[in-house]
Amino acid sequence: MANAVVSFSDHTVSLVALVSDQIRNGQYVMGFGFNSIGRYGQSGILRERMIPRILSADSESLLNENGHQFDAAAIAQTAMQNEKPGGHGDRASALGALELAVWDLNAKLADEPAYVTIAKAFGRNPEFHATPVYAAGGYYYPDDSIAGLRNELEGYRKMGFDGLKMKVGGASLDEDLGRIEVGLEVAGDGKLLAVDANGRFEKKAAFAFADAIAPLDLRWLEEPGDPLDYQLNRELTEAYSGAIATGENLFSRADAHNLIRFGGMRQGKDIFQMDAGLSYGLTEYAGMIATLEAEGFHRTQCYPHGGHLINLHIAVGLELGGCEAYPGVFQPFGGYPAACKIEQGLVWPTDAPGFGLEQKDELREDLQLLRDNM
Amino acid sequence: MANAVVSFSDHTVSLVALVSDQIRNGQYVMGFGFNSIGRYGQSGILRERMIPRILSADSESLLNENGHQFDAAAIAQTAMQNEKPGGHGDRASALGALELAVWDLNAKLADEPAYVTIAKAFGRNPEFHATPVYAAGGYYYPDDSIAGLRNELEGYRKMGFDGLKMKVGGASLDEDLGRIEVGLEVAGDGKLLAVDANGRFEKKAAFAFADAIAPLDLRWLEEPGDPLDYQLNRELTEAYSGAIATGENLFSRADAHNLIRFGGMRQGKDIFQMDAGLSYGLTEYAGMIATLEAEGFHRTQCYPHGGHLINLHIAVGLELGGCEAYPGVFQPFGGYPAACKIEQGLVWPTDAPGFGLEQKDELREDLQLLRDNM
Repeated sequence: MANAVVSFSDHTVSLVALVSDQIRNGQYVMGFGFNSIGRYGQSGILRERMIPRILSADSESLLNENGHQFDAAAIAQTAMQNEKPGGHGDRASALGALELAVWDLNAKLADEPAYVTIAKAFGRNPEFHATPVYAAGGYYYPDDSIAGLRNELEGYRKMGFDGLKMKVGGASLDEDLGRIEVGLEVAGDGKLLAVDANGRFEKKAAFAFADAIAPLDLRWLEEPGDPLDYQLNRELTEAYSGAIATGENLFSRADAHNLIRFGGMRQGKDIFQMDAGLSYGLTEYAGMIATLEAEGFHRTQCYPHGGHLINLHIAVGLELGGCEAYPGVFQPFGGYPAACKIEQGLVWPTDAPGFGLEQKDELREDLQLLRDNM
Repeated sequence: MANAVVSFSDHTVSLVALVSDQIRNGQYVMGFGFNSIGRYGQSGILRERMIPRILSADSESLLNENGHQFDAAAIAQTAMQNEKPGGHGDRASALGALELAVWDLNAKLADEPAYVTIAKAFGRNPEFHATPVYAAGGYYYPDDSIAGLRNELEGYRKMGFDGLKMKVGGASLDEDLGRIEVGLEVAGDGKLLAVDANGRFEKKAAFAFADAIAPLDLRWLEEPGDPLDYQLNRELTEAYSGAIATGENLFSRADAHNLIRFGGMRQGKDIFQMDAGLSYGLTEYAGMIATLEAEGFHRTQCYPHGGHLINLHIAVGLELGGCEAYPGVFQPFGGYPAACKIEQGLVWPTDAPGFGLEQKDELREDLQLLRDNM
């Protein structure tokens, strides 16, 4: 399966296990984390850089004040010792997997779902224990692209999703407009359909595309140009009346701050898609939210990239606008276990301790393998 | 040894060998490349992502038009297949090592020094086959910091270097001013002494430091703040009369373009230190130079980070302002072989084919190991 730029067929994910010395139900309590899809092969960064630093740290320095849980920020800081500033790429994804495992472990040690642990840690008290999600997909199919697309999007509707997102930029403008027509038929309303160019367009093509879809009043146009081309982003926000969504390829607070300063993002309108699993974990991600809020944006403008259980808990715990969902793709990491209620475009995390990754049939074997190899 | 932020004692480097099917003097011709110091542990990125893509590509697609050398841009593009845009971090360093090995191999296949191959490839015809370098060092020493510093810097002068660079930001302002006084005594002139804060300062400290050193008329102030804080950089260039140097932690054309657009860099004054060995190799680096020139800057404002033989050839071949040199540190990769003439702050690459890494005593064993393991 492919978007306008990338085939994901060879992409893997780093899965990290943290083993505690606490025993529940006859087993050591373990925390699991993974990075979101997009960067892979971080074994060297984890094994040669980050993990040795953590293992050689004074254990007390890694614990929370209560001494019964781990301090995710301290662990992240320890993992980043002697790292040079700037250049936030693969290592952000490596640490993302590792730091998120701390949150899973902490929640399990407290015997509560991760969104509860997360909410407490960041001073939130969410009234509502579900979050709006949209089904991300709408890929290009080699044969009979239109039928494949319709079939895929209708499948998401049947599962209980109402918001949909589809890929654009991998075909001619005319062909893409035909595909969007199909998306609109399935979604029923432009406000329920977003389109994602995955950074494909140069300036001229970006403006041509934005002009062509403006009358359709779509939910948002995602990553029209290179994710670091803040100037193009600003020019588009000045010209395009709809919302622009971007940020999944900004992996640090410094990069997100540059998007805010130079990218023309509009308060109350445009969408930020930074993703803890690609951005050093939840500590850095929460820092990005703080930066956004300090600059007058609202956290409901945040819809993290990465349609998996971890981001579902983060979106609920931090009371974000919602998050992406991968109901059909990026298995075994994408999507939710059957026990998660999906209704009218909302998804409820279950009450399983931690992120509840063990409830996901597709993932259970991989987690057991890590347990067996400890 | 340490700067204000990072201890490099555990840092390693990725060394890549490209083996051709051509035989010279009874041996297969091999190209060697390495990334500059700063990021490490890229084995996963190289072995799981980039190398398999190159090995599975159609060989013809990787050759130059003449069919006798390799097309570095095509190899870089192949290595980056299915990589998502943005987030230029560790993978830029992984590809840097690999792509630079192509230049070494091409130069050896043509039986000429790499700077000649590089100059031809980018349409340059350097009159002068040497480049100005400065000795980068001036580290903090645990005991008797001042004596250690003076001793180190005097050693560089004896080797034939006149320009010196020393670390700041790792001590109090007062202590750093005392250290700079020592640097000035050894250098003899502020215009021969640069100071490097390695991104350490927050805004207030950056301004305090810039104010304090302004009367000293130093050669440049390097990386005063976070390398991605373009706004701080712009504010400093507006307030500080001396030159600002930065860019060693910007690993792509897109990031360098943002520095130009938003960072306030001054034409004919400030210094760009992007480094091919951290930035996807020479193809991307040459693209950065093209971007700089299109925006009115001159290539003599470029002094690549990374004081090793590879950047020496790049600086000569592309007619840059000069480059960094690590005469005493980052062995076996830093510095130059004894056969390189160093005089009055200029360094001459030798006539050895390629980058001439084989002439470096400290490195020969590592290169032989790669040859033995092919």
